[in-house]
Amino acid sequence: MHGMSAVPSVSNSITVRLTLPARATAVSELTGIIEKSGGLVTGLDVTASGADRIRVDVTAAARDTTHADEIVEQMRAVHGVEIGKVSDRTFLVHLGGKLKIESKVPIRNRDDLSLIYTPGVARVCMAIANNPADARRLTIKRNTVAVVTDGSAVLGLGNIGPLGALPVMEGKAALFKRFADIDAFPICLDTQDTEEIITAVKAISPVFAGINLEDISAPRCFEIEARLREELDIPVFHDDQHGTAIVTLAALRNALRVVGKELSESKVVLSGAGAAGTAILKLLLRAGARDVVVADQYGVVHSARADLAAEGQENLRWVAEHTNTRGLTGTLKEAVGGADVFIGVSAPGILTGDDIATMNDKAIVFAMANPEPEVDPSAAAQHAAVVATGRSDFANQINNVLVFPGVFRGLLDAASTSIDLDVMLAAAKALSEVVHPDELNAAYIIPSVFHPDVSKVVAAAVKAAVLGQSPEAVERAAVAEAASPTGDEAELLR
Amino acid sequence: MHGMSAVPSVSNSITVRLTLPARATAVSELTGIIEKSGGLVTGLDVTASGADRIRVDVTAAARDTTHADEIVEQMRAVHGVEIGKVSDRTFLVHLGGKLKIESKVPIRNRDDLSLIYTPGVARVCMAIANNPADARRLTIKRNTVAVVTDGSAVLGLGNIGPLGALPVMEGKAALFKRFADIDAFPICLDTQDTEEIITAVKAISPVFAGINLEDISAPRCFEIEARLREELDIPVFHDDQHGTAIVTLAALRNALRVVGKELSESKVVLSGAGAAGTAILKLLLRAGARDVVVADQYGVVHSARADLAAEGQENLRWVAEHTNTRGLTGTLKEAVGGADVFIGVSAPGILTGDDIATMNDKAIVFAMANPEPEVDPSAAAQHAAVVATGRSDFANQINNVLVFPGVFRGLLDAASTSIDLDVMLAAAKALSEVVHPDELNAAYIIPSVFHPDVSKVVAAAVKAAVLGQSPEAVERAAVAEAASPTGDEAELLR
Repeated sequence: MHGMSAVPSVSNSITVRLTLPARATAVSELTGIIEKSGGLVTGLDVTASGADRIRVDVTAAARDTTHADEIVEQMRAVHGVEIGKVSDRTFLVHLGGKLKIESKVPIRNRDDLSLIYTPGVARVCMAIANNPADARRLTIKRNTVAVVTDGSAVLGLGNIGPLGALPVMEGKAALFKRFADIDAFPICLDTQDTEEIITAVKAISPVFAGINLEDISAPRCFEIEARLREELDIPVFHDDQHGTAIVTLAALRNALRVVGKELSESKVVLSGAGAAGTAILKLLLRAGARDVVVADQYGVVHSARADLAAEGQENLRWVAEHTNTRGLTGTLKEAVGGADVFIGVSAPGILTGDDIATMNDKAIVFAMANPEPEVDPSAAAQHAAVVATGRSDFANQINNVLVFPGVFRGLLDAASTSIDLDVMLAAAKALSEVVHPDELNAAYIIPSVFHPDVSKVVAAAVKAAVLGQSPEAVERAAVAEAASPTGDEAELLR
Repeated sequence: MHGMSAVPSVSNSITVRLTLPARATAVSELTGIIEKSGGLVTGLDVTASGADRIRVDVTAAARDTTHADEIVEQMRAVHGVEIGKVSDRTFLVHLGGKLKIESKVPIRNRDDLSLIYTPGVARVCMAIANNPADARRLTIKRNTVAVVTDGSAVLGLGNIGPLGALPVMEGKAALFKRFADIDAFPICLDTQDTEEIITAVKAISPVFAGINLEDISAPRCFEIEARLREELDIPVFHDDQHGTAIVTLAALRNALRVVGKELSESKVVLSGAGAAGTAILKLLLRAGARDVVVADQYGVVHSARADLAAEGQENLRWVAEHTNTRGLTGTLKEAVGGADVFIGVSAPGILTGDDIATMNDKAIVFAMANPEPEVDPSAAAQHAAVVATGRSDFANQINNVLVFPGVFRGLLDAASTSIDLDVMLAAAKALSEVVHPDELNAAYIIPSVFHPDVSKVVAAAVKAAVLGQSPEAVERAAVAEAASPTGDEAELLR
C-alpha cells in the first residue's frame, strides 16, 4: 500500500505550520515549491501576521509518505522559511478513535433513572429472562453487529495483531452506520487460536444479532466461520469471503450483460484459492457457472496435483473436485487463453496485456488484487471489453462497501438466524439491478458506494430471501409499517 | 423488587387507550376511579372524539405490576368504557435498546472514505502495530470501557442469564456516558464458567481501556477479578464490590463527622460477607478501622467456626483472620450491642428498632439491602443518629452511580493499567468532600447522583492517585490543557 499511488491523494495530506518573511511573493513562492515537488495545495491560511513575518498553515496532498517528507524538505529551501509543526491529516481524522456510544434515553432526573435503571429495569430483565426472543424488542440486540477480527490478515498489511487492526474495524463500524444505520462494535481478539476465537465469539454473542468476521487469515477463517455458523443462532458473515463474492457476482452479471454472454456458457478463470477465491467460486457455481478453472501460485488446481494430498488442504481438494471439468493442468497464463472471464483475487502483476489478448472475444477482466491489480488495467483494456479493479482510481471499482451494510440490514430486519448461498445470490442480483439497463455500459457495471439506493435494495432482497417472500411484498410491508404508529410494539404489559 | 414500593412510581406507569361514552362526567369518573384505586394520574389526552364516544389515552403510576392490573380492572367498571391497548411506560422506554453507536467522522464522499478506511487507514494501523501505546491516541480504546457480566447475580433477581442482564448493562453504559462521557459497551457472556469468563474477557480486552465487572455471583467474582487484574494491563473494577465499598466509605466518613467519632476508635459491625461485604471490609481496614466484626447468615465470623474449614471458604477465612479482634461469637443481634456503626449488605428485615437501641450512643446505621433494608429505616431512626439505605425514597441513598463514572474517568485520563486500594481510598475521600462542612447533617451525608461536581471531583482524585500527584496539580494541568489547542497531539507525522 505504501508508495503505490501515482497521483497525490488526500489520504496522504499533510498540514505544515511555518513562518515566512512578510514579502509580497512569499506565499506564491511557497505554493510554487509545493507544486513543483508534485504536491497539490488543498488549503492555505495565514493564521498570524506581524510587521516582518507571517504564519501560514498550508495543507498539501502528496503521493505517499516519502513524497510528503520530500515536499517538506523542499519547503525548507524557500528563503527565510521556518518550518514548525507538521501534521498528517489522516492521523488527525483518527485521533481519539472514530466511534462513540450514546444513550438513546434521557437521564435528567430520578424518574428517568428509575425507568432505565433500578428499579424499573428489573421488569424488563424478567420479561427477557422469561421470553428470550423479547431481547430483539427490548435491547440493542435488534440492531447490533459485532465486527470481529484477530488481526491476522489486515488489508494488505498482514498479521499486525488486534490493536493494529482496530482502526480498520472502527472504520467498518462507521460504514455500517453510514450506509445501513446499524450499530456495529469492533471486537479485536487477543488470540489467533482457532478454538479460542470460536469460544470467545460464542461467549460474547448474546448482545449481537449478527457476526461480521473480518481480516482473519485462511485457512483458519473457514473453520471459524463454519463452526460459528453451526453453533450460533445468529448469522455469521465473513466479509472477505462473502462480501467479496456477492459484489463480484453482481458486477459479473452486469459485465456479461454488456458483452451479451451467459454465465452458464462462459469459460471462467479464477486466480486465487484463498478466502475470497473460494467464496467467489462457490457463489459462481450456485449462480450457474459450469466451466470454472481455479489457479493458485502453483498453477491450475486439478485433482492430480501432489500438494492437494497434504493435511490442511481440504479446501483445495474441494476446489479440484468442483472445477476444471476440462481437466486443465499448467499455468494460470495458459489457462487464461480462450477464457471469457478472468477474476483475480490473488497477487499483483501476474498477467500482462499480452496474456489478456489470448482470451476469448469480448473478454471480461476483474483484476481485484489490492492495491496493485493482477494486470495493469490500462493494458488489459486494450484487449478486454470490460475491466474492473478494486481501486477507486479506475472505472468499475468492485468494493465490499456495496454489500455488507445492505446484507446485514436485511438480515437484522428479518431477525435472521443464518445466511446461506441463496440469500447471497439474491443480494448479488439486487445489487446488479441497481444499475438500470439504460445506464449499463462497459465503464459502469456497478454503482457507486454513494448511490442512494444500494443498501436499501440489497436489504430488501436479503430480507425477502430470508423470509421466503418476494422483494415487492417486503417493500409493501415496509411502507405499511412506516405509515402506522410505533404503537403495535408498545403493547407490552407483562 | 416486585410489590415492594409503598407509593405509586413512574417505573410502574401504564398508558391505557380506551373509549368512553361522550357524557360530561366521563373523564372525571375515569380519573376518580383511578385515584380511588390508589393510582396517580400523570397524563390524560382525548385523542379522538365522535358524536357519541371519545377516545382517551390515560397514563397512571401504580405501586407495582399487580396494582397496575387492578387499576385497569377498576377502569372496566366505568359505565360504557371499552379498554383497548394497555402499554407499560418502562417497556416503552426500553424499546429497541438504550444505546446507539455513532461515527465521529463524516463519510460524505470518496475522500472521506479514503481517509477513514482504505487506503488511508493503513498508515494508522501500521503506526499502532509499531507502537501499541499509540492505540490510546488513535483508536476508541482511549475512552472505552467494557461492562461485563455473566448474568449470574443481576440486581436482586438472581441468575437470569446474559440476555436478561442486558437491559441493566445497557443502563450502566448509559450512566457511564451521562455522568462521565465514557463510551461503555455491554459484554454479556454466554458462559458462567470461571475459566471461560477469564479467557473471553482477556480475548476481547484490546479494544478497552478498562473492565467493569457487574452482577457476577460470589465467590466466582473474586477469582475472576483477581485473575483478570493479574493478567490484563488495564484496570479491572467489580462495581458490586469496589463501587459499593467506595460509596459506603465516603458516606461513613461524613456520618462519623456528623456524630463526632473517629473510624479508628469506632466499633463497626458488618452484616454480609459476600462480594460487597468483603470489599467494604478491605477498604474500611485500609481506611484505618481497627474494630470490625463481620456476620453472615450463620452469625459472627470467627476463626473457630467449623464451616470455615470447608473448601471454597478462602474468603471467609481471610475475614476471620482480619476482623473480630475481641473474639466475639454468637449472633448478629448480639454483636450489634454496643457497636458504633452497623453496615448491612445482606438480607431484608434481620434487625428491629429494638436491636438498634442496643447500639452505642450516636449510632450510625447503613441498611443497604435492596429493595428491603436490614432494618426499617424509620424504626432505626428512632434510636440511631444517622441512617442511610440503598433506596431513593429515604434520605442518604448510598448509590454506586456516585462512584463508577468518576472512578473510570480518572483511570482513563491517567491511562491507568490497574486500580488499587489507595486509589479507591482517594475516590472515597473526594466523594465525601463534595458535601461541604456547612451542608453536612444527619440527613445529608452523601450528595445526590445529579450533583454536578461528583464525577469531576472523583475523577480528579483518582487520576491524581494513579499518577502520584496532588489533585490540585491534576486540576491545574486540566485547565492548562483546555486552554491550549488540541494541536500538540496533532504532531503525528511518522
